[in-house]
Amino acid sequence: MSKRLCVIGVGLIGGSVAMAARRSSLYGSITGYDADADNLQQALNLGVIDQAASSITNAVHAANLVVIASPVGAIKQLFAELQPVWADRCVYTDVGSTKQSVIADAEAVFGEVPDNFVAGHPIAGTENSGVNAAFAELFDHKQVILTPLATTQQSAIDTVRIFWEQAAHAQVSEMQPQHHDHLLAATSHLPHVVAYALVNLLNRQSESEEIFQFAASGFRDFTRIASSNPRMWTDICLANHQQIVELLKSYQNELSEIVQLLEGNRSAALYECFSSARNGRERFLEITNQDN
Amino acid sequence: MSKRLCVIGVGLIGGSVAMAARRSSLYGSITGYDADADNLQQALNLGVIDQAASSITNAVHAANLVVIASPVGAIKQLFAELQPVWADRCVYTDVGSTKQSVIADAEAVFGEVPDNFVAGHPIAGTENSGVNAAFAELFDHKQVILTPLATTQQSAIDTVRIFWEQAAHAQVSEMQPQHHDHLLAATSHLPHVVAYALVNLLNRQSESEEIFQFAASGFRDFTRIASSNPRMWTDICLANHQQIVELLKSYQNELSEIVQLLEGNRSAALYECFSSARNGRERFLEITNQDN
Repeated sequence: MSKRLCVIGVGLIGGSVAMAARRSSLYGSITGYDADADNLQQALNLGVIDQAASSITNAVHAANLVVIASPVGAIKQLFAELQPVWADRCVYTDVGSTKQSVIADAEAVFGEVPDNFVAGHPIAGTENSGVNAAFAELFDHKQVILTPLATTQQSAIDTVRIFWEQAAHAQVSEMQPQHHDHLLAATSHLPHVVAYALVNLLNRQSESEEIFQFAASGFRDFTRIASSNPRMWTDICLANHQQIVELLKSYQNELSEIVQLLEGNRSAALYECFSSARNGRERFLEITNQDN
Repeated sequence: MSKRLCVIGVGLIGGSVAMAARRSSLYGSITGYDADADNLQQALNLGVIDQAASSITNAVHAANLVVIASPVGAIKQLFAELQPVWADRCVYTDVGSTKQSVIADAEAVFGEVPDNFVAGHPIAGTENSGVNAAFAELFDHKQVILTPLATTQQSAIDTVRIFWEQAAHAQVSEMQPQHHDHLLAATSHLPHVVAYALVNLLNRQSESEEIFQFAASGFRDFTRIASSNPRMWTDICLANHQQIVELLKSYQNELSEIVQLLEGNRSAALYECFSSARNGRERFLEITNQDN
């Protein structure tokens, strides 16, 4: 009998999860649920899911794997709705961008984190939202971090790992939830805040129209992440606010040092600063095997 | 008799200027000069220029248009070398990213800015350097800002405008030098400083290798400008340091407000902040007629 996948939240990530599963033969049937009825209907129309469920309870019925792909801020409520129908023979995972908050939400709802729940985070996305933006290749060659606890069933971890590796063609790592949040604060959460703040600053200038008119292509790339879903990023930033605030303060010190170099006309030190940044980015490209 | 173009500094910008000129029939002969002999030889080997000059004096001989495409920090010295052979019948322009400093350099060397010098700035580039990175289409549909003075010859302005419009397929605007520097501080200089500082912060973390390993594709786009030439950007930032410092301080205030929202768990205000940034970027895309 073919296995059944359930995706809760069929947006960019959840829709791409369903499409990646469809591409493989791991799951023969895909059920979707979404709080946004229009988005759910669209997922059905596009063939991203086989069935659109009318409720959480219906959605998870007879599922072998449930992927919770909702914004981090909605996960606690979802756990509460899932609790009455939580099934021992099913495996549950999520895709949230913060992991300590998801673990804490599970503890708050269930008393302790269920041993068949494997917290996870595929490090992939675009600045777009909704099922219309989903595509099966979103996770190809991307990193997925799982943050199981000591009490998590090994067979549940295996099920989730196999899904990401074989259906989604991703590379899977495991680490502690707090370590995940520390790393992602640096490479994802901080850059988003930095980009949002920059666009806001420029948008508020009296001559902002002219400023934007004469912006170069580098500005477009640099600010692309400022087009990301503000609801999702509010949730993420609040869920991981301690790590982000700490980094933001270090970052402000970094900027203050550059202000001092500029005010002191410190050419050699400024060159050293910019050079080491360029070398740092070269290191990033080498580590991740990318060209530019 | 065909017209002669001289390009001083045959790197990414100067090389692309030469290649754009080659594409058109405006100039029949292109002479290049570069302080870096290897880069100059490479420009000749690639056919980017027709002649490689052994000195500034030889380079500008019989030229109808001289494009100074050197780093902003080298322009004063170049003016000094050009002064003995400065020709009334020739038109001179530059491509420097700051315009007040170039005007000031011309005044310092010549006493007053020559009326056949038209300061200019093509708003185009990549994170790469050198003639190997040059291409004829670099300026297609891009903005070029000219900052002529009241004393500048109209015929010189026309010559430079025609070059950018007809050979380089760019859109030409004219404005005051200080206004140019104000606009570019916001959309170009500030983002570069912000990106350099971010990469430096992350590169200095003890677990920087792991941080980079798990960075998403958004991080690559966001930091691309941190791979820009550090020599060039040191010059630009020092030449326009007042405007940049002022913006950096406003930017730090912007970040401090976000820190307060995060520390105060101010979900609604944070959402408002991120939403207005997304709307701001939408505005930028509309104004510049771009998709993402």
